[in-house]
Order: sequence, then C-alpha cells, then structure tokens
Amino acid sequence: MNENKQRCAIGVDFGGTFVKLARVDEHGVIGARASFATAGLAGVAGWLDAVARHVDTLLADMPADVEWRGIGVGVPGFVDYARGFVHNLTNVPGWSAVPLAEMLTQRFGKTARVDNDVNAMAVGECTYGAGQAYQHAVFITLGTGVGGGLLINKALYRGAYSLAGEIGHVSIDRNGIVSPTGRGGVEQYVGNKRIVERALQALDAGRTSRILEFAGGRREDITPKVISAAAAAGDELAGEIFDFVADCLATMMASVAYLLQPQAFIIGGGIAAAGPVLFDPLRRHLNERLSPYFAERLVIKRAELGNDAGVIGAATLTFLE
Amino acid sequence: MNENKQRCAIGVDFGGTFVKLARVDEHGVIGARASFATAGLAGVAGWLDAVARHVDTLLADMPADVEWRGIGVGVPGFVDYARGFVHNLTNVPGWSAVPLAEMLTQRFGKTARVDNDVNAMAVGECTYGAGQAYQHAVFITLGTGVGGGLLINKALYRGAYSLAGEIGHVSIDRNGIVSPTGRGGVEQYVGNKRIVERALQALDAGRTSRILEFAGGRREDITPKVISAAAAAGDELAGEIFDFVADCLATMMASVAYLLQPQAFIIGGGIAAAGPVLFDPLRRHLNERLSPYFAERLVIKRAELGNDAGVIGAATLTFLE
Repeated sequence: MNENKQRCAIGVDFGGTFVKLARVDEHGVIGARASFATAGLAGVAGWLDAVARHVDTLLADMPADVEWRGIGVGVPGFVDYARGFVHNLTNVPGWSAVPLAEMLTQRFGKTARVDNDVNAMAVGECTYGAGQAYQHAVFITLGTGVGGGLLINKALYRGAYSLAGEIGHVSIDRNGIVSPTGRGGVEQYVGNKRIVERALQALDAGRTSRILEFAGGRREDITPKVISAAAAAGDELAGEIFDFVADCLATMMASVAYLLQPQAFIIGGGIAAAGPVLFDPLRRHLNERLSPYFAERLVIKRAELGNDAGVIGAATLTFLE
Repeated sequence: MNENKQRCAIGVDFGGTFVKLARVDEHGVIGARASFATAGLAGVAGWLDAVARHVDTLLADMPADVEWRGIGVGVPGFVDYARGFVHNLTNVPGWSAVPLAEMLTQRFGKTARVDNDVNAMAVGECTYGAGQAYQHAVFITLGTGVGGGLLINKALYRGAYSLAGEIGHVSIDRNGIVSPTGRGGVEQYVGNKRIVERALQALDAGRTSRILEFAGGRREDITPKVISAAAAAGDELAGEIFDFVADCLATMMASVAYLLQPQAFIIGGGIAAAGPVLFDPLRRHLNERLSPYFAERLVIKRAELGNDAGVIGAATLTFLE
C-alpha cells in the first residue's frame, strides 16, 4: 500500500427498492454513482453479481493515483457488525444468515464492512456531515420507521449485540400502542403511515383542511410531504399534526437527552425536510420537557448529507480503524 | 511511589443525613469505617474539617506496607467530574459552586476525585460488585428518586456535560405527571413517596389489605419496605403496587435497552431489597416489552455492595486511569 495515495471506497446503500452505489473519497466526496432495482435479483448471488458489475463501472474512471480501499454496505435490517454478518433483512426476501462481509472480501479481495443502514448514515453524518463537530451525538432518521445511531466518544456505539440505537422503540406511553417490539414505541406514532392515517382520520371526521387540495384532491396521494406543505401554508389541521409529531419526538428525545446527555441531535430522513414546520415545535416541546441546564446546551440540527448519507456512510465504514 | 506497595483510598459517601467514610483497598475491601452527621456543620469549611479528622483516624491503623492513594467523594447533586467541581447539592444548603477536588488536594496533598453519588455507586458495583463481568451495563438505584449510571466499554459514561445517566427522568408517559424535569419521568411513579402514596390512597378508598397491619397499625410507618413485606406475605393490594412499580420500571428499562443494548441492568437501592416481589414482575413485564432477541440476552441483577457501594465506589474513583 502506498501511503501517499489518496484512498477511496465503494459505498453501497442497500434499500428495499433500490441499491445505490458510489465511489467516495476520504473527504466524503462522491466521484461516481450507480444504482439498480432491488427486485428481480436471483437472491444473494444475483445481488453480488449486480454489485460487482456496477463496482467495475465505478472503478473504471478512477484516477490512477487513487487506491481502492474496500467496500462498505448499509443494509435494511439486523447485522452483526464485528463479523459483517446479516441476520436478516426485514423487507428483502432470501436474506437471512448471510456472511456478507466475508463474501465481499472473497469476491473483491478488499476490506469489506457491513452495517445496518441507519448506523451507516449516522457514521456518514458524524464524519462528513452535520455531526462532525461533536464528541457525543444522536442521529435520528424519520421515515417508515424511526431509526437511530449513537455517537459516543466520536465512535458509533453498537451495544452488546450490535443492535443499539433502536430509538424508534423507545416508549412514550406505558399504556400506548402495542407492537411486536413492545408498547408505546415512538415510531408507532410518527412513522410515515401513522402521520398519513392521522390526517385521513381527521378529514373523515369532517375537519376542514387544505391537505386534500395539496394532494391534488387524491386521498391516496396524501403523504407526510403533502401535509408539511399544507402546514407551511398555514393549514390548521396540518399544523396540529406536525405539532403532535414534534411532541412525540420531543418526549423520546428528552428521555434520550437525560440518559446520554449528547451535545446534539441530528435529524435526517424524509420528514426532516419539513423544516421549521417540524423543527420549531420540536424545539419548543423539548424545552418544555427538559430542565434548563439540559435544554440550553442541546443542539438540534438537520442532517446535511441528505440522500447521499447512506452511500457516503457505508464507504466511510471502510476508512475506520 | 513504590510500585510494590498495596494502595488504598479513602471513599466518602456524602449523604443528606450522614457522611460515611471508609478506607478501601484496591480489591474493594474495606479496612476501616467512620461516619458523622451531615447537619450542624459550619458549611464547606466545617465539612472539610470533619472529614480531615475522620481521615486521620482511618489512616492511623493503616498497615505500613500500604500507600494512601487519595480521596474520592460521592455527593448528592450536580458535579462536573473532570474538574471535581460541585455545581450544587439538592438537599444540603450552602453547597453551590464548590471546587471540592481542588480543596481536597490542597488539604491532603493527594489525588482527589468528586462525582455524583449514583455514579460513584455505579463505579463501585461495576468494579467490585454485580457489574464486574460486563462491558456495557446500566446501574439503577431506587430510592427517593431513581438514579442511574451507564457503563459503556468498561468505563462510566458521563455525557457531554457530566450529567448523563439521569434515568429517573426518562418519560414513561407523554401526558404523564408534570415535574420540573419534564413530564412522565419514571421516578414520579416509583420514587419511595409515590409508592407509599399509592398504598395510602387505596386504603383510603376502602381496599382491604394487611399493609397497615405490617406497619404496626400506624399509617405514618408505611414504607416501601413494609409494603414489600406485605406483598411477600401474599397481600393482594401490596402485590398490585409492586406489579405497578415493576411495570413502570420495565417501560423505562425497555427504552434504555433498545437504545443502549446493555448486557445487564444492575439494580440497587432500598426497594431492590424487596427481592422476588419486585424482580419477578419486573422480568415478566420487561419480556412483554422487548422483542425476544433483546429480552433473551438481557441480565437483570441485584446490586451486591449494598450500603457500602457509595464509599467503595468513591474510593474506586481514585484508582481509575
């Protein structure tokens, strides 16, 4: 290995719908991208073949003075990070008990790392994005579920069995909604589907609102994004829904803050794009729910890497230690 | 310094009622003890004089081949551990903005460490008690309030501003009891006074129960200990109260487990002495509130150092790094 060479890595963001790949350098800058559909691949072997083809393409135009360090993958499910072993993927059939890091190393002869997708995003944000300045930070991603990643002493903390940071299951109500992961988990209140359900229920109950108008009159087109646009335009119901979402998140975040006392919360994922419609009530509720000493010192920031957090973070895993 | 010498330290457990001191060796064994009443001392200076007198006594019969390493203090309030600075003590007047570690070092010419009392206990339990085997563990103490200490990678994690582990403020109900630290904090439900209140309310509402009999017929003598004795004897109301306490704790502990995935919870403090009356429903509720993967791997243990956790832990602080 030439110490003077710039290094790069391939980052793979393995989503339920698309697999995205990028060649990322040590400064977190993307040199080339690719993607392919997750559906229709012939299991793990088919997935590996497709990844290999795209890796070839991504490396083809790599400058000569750059060394390919390895490949990192963020997957949507349960992973043992130390072994790079995929226990199983929630929404991708055929992926259970896969020694993925080992298979990737055999295939490419390079360092390979496999992590949960949210952990990979958290690593990306904390290395190159909104979390760079912090020693201790908590990364939250808002989408279908609520995911989390914990930065402790500048490193991602994975817990005793590689599954720490399951922030979506933190309970906000002892007698709340029952799910397979317990009772009152915050994602049972603020997951994308729950937000839309809440709007539909209010509309069905006869509430006046412009939400349907923002969805072009089509109920099935109501999304959290549509509701946030209505809220930004001053729609009362939409504002109430985001206030509720913010309060549920603030309840969980106050618990996390009392427990871990991070310097910052970094919030990414679709709903984070709502901007002030979410962040203003979030700050207000959090201040109500924390003693001033905790509230005053706590930073709440929006994630900066956006849709690239997954590929950048996955690539970053191969630069660690 | 002679490397072959055994080392010892003075541990000080600064409580609201008593100040307890002990000479503790590097194996966590107590060689001598002392204590004095907290009330009636002339402020910080008076406290320091009293401590110095007792330290002299404790060191007087120290074997010649033992070296006195330093002094550690666990205090009931807010501390900046890195500086050994006491912000303020909740129940001890006159203690605010005290650079206690500095004052102790000046007085004794030795290493001095000052920490929150619960942190000190957690350090003691994780070094010499129930937490020795673990890399990642959460220490909980049940008393007037609910305190916590987080062992992460074999070290106490103190957070960004030295106040992490405030487990008593983790919310179990978004719309729950309001307090200066937020809403629904678990200690608002399971603190000693709350447990007694719950019993009194049920008795006032006409519930048949042997709790009053266990308190010798005196309402004012009803304590969590009395209620646990009644529960152990099969009293239905007392059993219900402990089931409620266990479920509140399980709600908080499930949230903590999903977040940190520790190997173990170690539970100390007065109510922990209730034994199976508390621990049986606690395990049951926790299993209901965690996915099997988390529940199966999680150990729940009673703390082992008992009333000595404070002095042993405080002494241990001086052995660290």
